[in-house]
Amino acid sequence: MPQPKYAHESQTIMTEMVLPNDTNTLNNLMGGRLLHWMDIAAAIAAQKHSNRIVVTASVDNVSFAEPIRLGNIVTMKAQVTRAFNSSMEVFIEVWAEDIPAGIRVSTNSAYYTFVAVDQTGRPIEVPAVIAETPEEKDRYDSALRRRQLRLVLAGRMKPQDATELRALLLAE
Amino acid sequence: MPQPKYAHESQTIMTEMVLPNDTNTLNNLMGGRLLHWMDIAAAIAAQKHSNRIVVTASVDNVSFAEPIRLGNIVTMKAQVTRAFNSSMEVFIEVWAEDIPAGIRVSTNSAYYTFVAVDQTGRPIEVPAVIAETPEEKDRYDSALRRRQLRLVLAGRMKPQDATELRALLLAE
Amino acid sequence: MPQPKYAHESQTIMTEMVLPNDTNTLNNLMGGRLLHWMDIAAAIAAQKHSNRIVVTASVDNVSFAEPIRLGNIVTMKAQVTRAFNSSMEVFIEVWAEDIPAGIRVSTNSAYYTFVAVDQTGRPIEVPAVIAETPEEKDRYDSALRRRQLRLVLAGRMKPQDATELRALLLAE
Amino acid sequence: MPQPKYAHESQTIMTEMVLPNDTNTLNNLMGGRLLHWMDIAAAIAAQKHSNRIVVTASVDNVSFAEPIRLGNIVTMKAQVTRAFNSSMEVFIEVWAEDIPAGIRVSTNSAYYTFVAVDQTGRPIEVPAVIAETPEEKDRYDSALRRRQLRLVLAGRMKPQDATELRALLLAE
Amino acid sequence: MPQPKYAHESQTIMTEMVLPNDTNTLNNLMGGRLLHWMDIAAAIAAQKHSNRIVVTASVDNVSFAEPIRLGNIVTMKAQVTRAFNSSMEVFIEVWAEDIPAGIRVSTNSAYYTFVAVDQTGRPIEVPAVIAETPEEKDRYDSALRRRQLRLVLAGRMKPQDATELRALLLAE
Amino acid sequence: MPQPKYAHESQTIMTEMVLPNDTNTLNNLMGGRLLHWMDIAAAIAAQKHSNRIVVTASVDNVSFAEPIRLGNIVTMKAQVTRAFNSSMEVFIEVWAEDIPAGIRVSTNSAYYTFVAVDQTGRPIEVPAVIAETPEEKDRYDSALRRRQLRLVLAGRMKPQDATELRALLLAE
Repeated sequence: MPQPKYAHESQTIMTEMVLPNDTNTLNNLMGGRLLHWMDIAAAIAAQKHSNRIVVTASVDNVSFAEPIRLGNIVTMKAQVTRAFNSSMEVFIEVWAEDIPAGIRVSTNSAYYTFVAVDQTGRPIEVPAVIAETPEEKDRYDSALRRRQLRLVLAGRMKPQDATELRALLLAE
Repeated sequence: MPQPKYAHESQTIMTEMVLPNDTNTLNNLMGGRLLHWMDIAAAIAAQKHSNRIVVTASVDNVSFAEPIRLGNIVTMKAQVTRAFNSSMEVFIEVWAEDIPAGIRVSTNSAYYTFVAVDQTGRPIEVPAVIAETPEEKDRYDSALRRRQLRLVLAGRMKPQDATELRALLLAE
Repeated sequence: MPQPKYAHESQTIMTEMVLPNDTNTLNNLMGGRLLHWMDIAAAIAAQKHSNRIVVTASVDNVSFAEPIRLGNIVTMKAQVTRAFNSSMEVFIEVWAEDIPAGIRVSTNSAYYTFVAVDQTGRPIEVPAVIAETPEEKDRYDSALRRRQLRLVLAGRMKPQDATELRALLLAE
Repeated sequence: MPQPKYAHESQTIMTEMVLPNDTNTLNNLMGGRLLHWMDIAAAIAAQKHSNRIVVTASVDNVSFAEPIRLGNIVTMKAQVTRAFNSSMEVFIEVWAEDIPAGIRVSTNSAYYTFVAVDQTGRPIEVPAVIAETPEEKDRYDSALRRRQLRLVLAGRMKPQDATELRALLLAE
Repeated sequence: MPQPKYAHESQTIMTEMVLPNDTNTLNNLMGGRLLHWMDIAAAIAAQKHSNRIVVTASVDNVSFAEPIRLGNIVTMKAQVTRAFNSSMEVFIEVWAEDIPAGIRVSTNSAYYTFVAVDQTGRPIEVPAVIAETPEEKDRYDSALRRRQLRLVLAGRMKPQDATELRALLLAE
Repeated sequence: MPQPKYAHESQTIMTEMVLPNDTNTLNNLMGGRLLHWMDIAAAIAAQKHSNRIVVTASVDNVSFAEPIRLGNIVTMKAQVTRAFNSSMEVFIEVWAEDIPAGIRVSTNSAYYTFVAVDQTGRPIEVPAVIAETPEEKDRYDSALRRRQLRLVLAGRMKPQDATELRALLLAE
C-alpha cells in the first residue's frame, strides 16, 4: 500500500479568463463550462495525490448562485480531502474577479470523485490522505457522509445502511 | 401566470462525436466535457419549456459509470420534469455508441435545474409542467424530494423540514 | 452482401447553440460552420446505416437563404436516402429557432455523400436502403438523378450519358 | 455603381495545419472542417473584391477525392470569378502537403457564392470583375452556367429557362 | 498617482493540461500555444497590479529548451516586476509535470510587457511596484536594462543611449 | 549535407479572421493569440525549407504597436532567413486589414527559430539558405548578430564573445 500523503500536497490552482464563447446571451459564464474547468482542476489534484491517471467517477450537487461575467477572471483551488481504496474525493472552490472593478466573490464549491487507474484502465490503490488543518480534518470526517449519499443516490447502498447520512438528516 | 405545457414539448435531442480534444490520455471522454454538453442540452429543453433565456441554477449528483471512447457517438435526451415558480428541473439521459462495433450503452443520467430570466437577468415565472406518461409522472412526483435535497445541501433548508426527503431515507 | 436496412434506422438528430465564435460581424452564423455541423450529423447517419467508419465523398449544392442568429438553436435531422455499393447519400434538413421569440424556421437542406471504409481506408459494401414513406421513396428515386449530376460535375460522366438528369432538365 | 476591379485583386491565400481535432478516427481531415476553412478563405476574397461585409449565399457541389492526413499543411487559394449585382462567385483551390514526405497534391476545388451587405444586412451592389488571364476569362464565362444550375437546384429558375446550362448538357 | 503596490499582490498561478490539439506530430506542446497561455497568465498579473484593462505591448526573447508532452500539466507563475508610467513588466515562469512519472521540470521563463488602458483604449498611469524579496529586487533593478534592449530592438532608442545595456554587454 | 535551397522556396502565407474568442474586452486581438498564429506560419516555412518535422526553439522580442480589431483579416508572411546546422531562423511579417474600411496596416514582425528533428526528436542537419534579393541578403547577414543576442540572453554565450552584437551596440 502506498505511503500516506498530506492533503495540501495535492493543492492545484487554476485560473481562467471568461472569453466570449464561454458565455450565454446575457454575457454570463455558462454553468457547463464552469463544470468542465472544475473537473480539470480537480482531476489534476487527484493526479498529484495518486501519481496516477485518474478518471472522473462522480460530481456531487453543485449550485450556481452568482453570475460570472465575460472578462472575469475565474480562480479554482482544488485539494484532495480523503481517499477510499482507489477513489479520491476532491474539494474545489471557485472565485470570480472583475479586476478593473476591484470585485472578487466566492461563487461555487463542489466535490468531485476520481478513480485512479493503471495504463489498462483498471482501478489501482491510492495513498491515504493526512488532514492537518481544522478545515482539512472537517472535510476528511464529513467525506464518509457524502460518500454514503453518493452511493444511495446511485442505488448502490440502501438508505437504511447509510448510518452517517441518516444521523445527519435525523439530527434534531 | 403562463399556460401549463406538456413535458414532452421540451424534449431535446443532442448528438456529439467524441473528438481527440475531448479525451484524456486513455482516449476516454473527460467527465467535465460531458457535463458541459449535458448542460447545453438541458438548457435548450428549459428554454423550450419557458420560451425564456435560462441560467443554470444547479446540477445534482452525476456518476460516470461507463467509459466513453474516442470516436463514439454520444446522444443526449433532455426533458423538463417539473417547474417551481421561475425554476425548472430537467432530466437528461446519455447514451454512447460505438457504431462500427454495434454497441450502444446507457452511460449517465442527471438532473439539472435552470432559472428563467428576463433580459435584465431577473427571475420570471414559467409554465407549469403537465406529466402524461407513467415515467413523466414518476419524475414529476419525485422532483419535490430532489428539490428538498438540493436545498438541504445548499444550506437553505433544515434537514428536519425536508419531509419528503426524510420519508425516503427513513423508510425501512 | 449485407442485409438491407430501413431508411429511418439511420435517423440522427443533432442540436447546436450558436455561440459567438460561430458568427460573423453581423452576429449571424457563418455558412462554413453550418456546413461543418451538417457534415458531422450526416456522417453519423451514414455510420448508423453502414456500421462502418465513413468518409465524406461530396456535398451537393447548398443555399443559405435565412440568416441564423447568435443564440439561436440549430436542429439538424439527417437520414440515409439510398446506397450505391460502398457509398450512401444522406439528406439533412436544418431548422433554426429563436426560442425566446417563439420563432422556428426551416433554413437549409442538403445532400451529402459518404463512402464506408474498412480500418485500412478501403471502400466496403453497405446495406441497401428500404424506403417506406412517400417522402423516403421520392428521395430514393431522385437519388439516381443527383448522382448523375455529381458525376457530370466531377467530370466522371459525360452529359449525354446522364439520362435521368437530361430527362429532368429537358422536360418541357 | 462601383468601379470594376481586377479578379486577381481579391486573391487570398490561407494555410492551415491539420490538428487532431480536425480528423476522424482514421486520422484524416473531416470534410466538414475543410468546407469551413474554404468558406472563410472564399469570404475573405469576396470581402476584398467588394470592400463590404459578405454573407455566404451558396456552395456548389464539392467532391473530396484525396484523403488529407493529420499533420498535413492545407493551402487554399481563393479568387472572385464574376459578380452579379450584389453577389459574387469565388473559386477556391485546395492543396495538401505532407512536407516531410515531399508530397503535395491538389485535393479539391469549389465555387462559393457570397452576397455583399451593408451594416443592416441589406444587399448592396458590388464592382464588376475584370478577368485578364485565359483561366480567369474561362471561369468568368462559365459563371453564368453555374449560376443557372444554382437557380434551378434552388427551385428559383425553370430548367427550360436555363439556356446556358441546357446547351452544355445537351451538347453532343 | 495611484498608491504603490507590492509585487507579490499581482501573483497569478495558471494550470493547463496539454490536450491533443495543443501538440505537434511528435505529441509535444507547440511553442505558440505556450506563448498564448503565458500571455494570458501575464495579462492577469498585470490586471491585478493595475486594476485596469491591459494590452500586450511586447514579449522578450523566449527559448524553448524542454519538450512538454501530451497529457503533461503546465503550471505558470506570473508576477509584476516593475512599472514605468502606464506600462508594466511581468515575469512568468513555466513548469511541466508528468505526474504519473513523478517528473517536474522548469521549462521556460519570459518577460511580457503590458500597457494599462482606460475604456477608450488610452494609456493610463499604474501604481509603482514595491519589490521585497532579494529575487524581486533583482528583477526590479534589471528591468531597466531589459527595457533599454526592448527600445533599441524596436528602433526607438539609439544603442549609444542604452547606458544600462551597454554596461552589461561591455563588462569584462 | 543536404543541397542548399533558396530563401523564397519556404515562403508561407497564412490568413486568419479575428473571431470573438481571439479578442479581449476591448474587442482587440490578444497578443498571445497572434504569437500562436505566427508560430504556426513560421513553423510551416521552416518545414518547407527542411522537409522535416520542426520544433520551436525560440522567439525573439516582439512588439505589438497597433491594435488589431474583431473582424479584421490578419495576413502573415513567413520565410526562412538563414540556417545554422539543424536550426533555422524565420522572419514573419504581419498585416491587419479592416476590409470594409479599406485600411491595411503593417502591425508586427518577428524572428522565430526552429530546430529540425527526426522521428525520434533528435536534431538533424538542414539545407543552407541562399539569399537572393537585397532584403534577403540583409536578413541573412544580420542573422548572426541576432543569434548572438539569443545565446547571450539564454546565458549560453558570454557578452564579450558576442563580437557581432558588440560591434552593433558599440558603434558610435
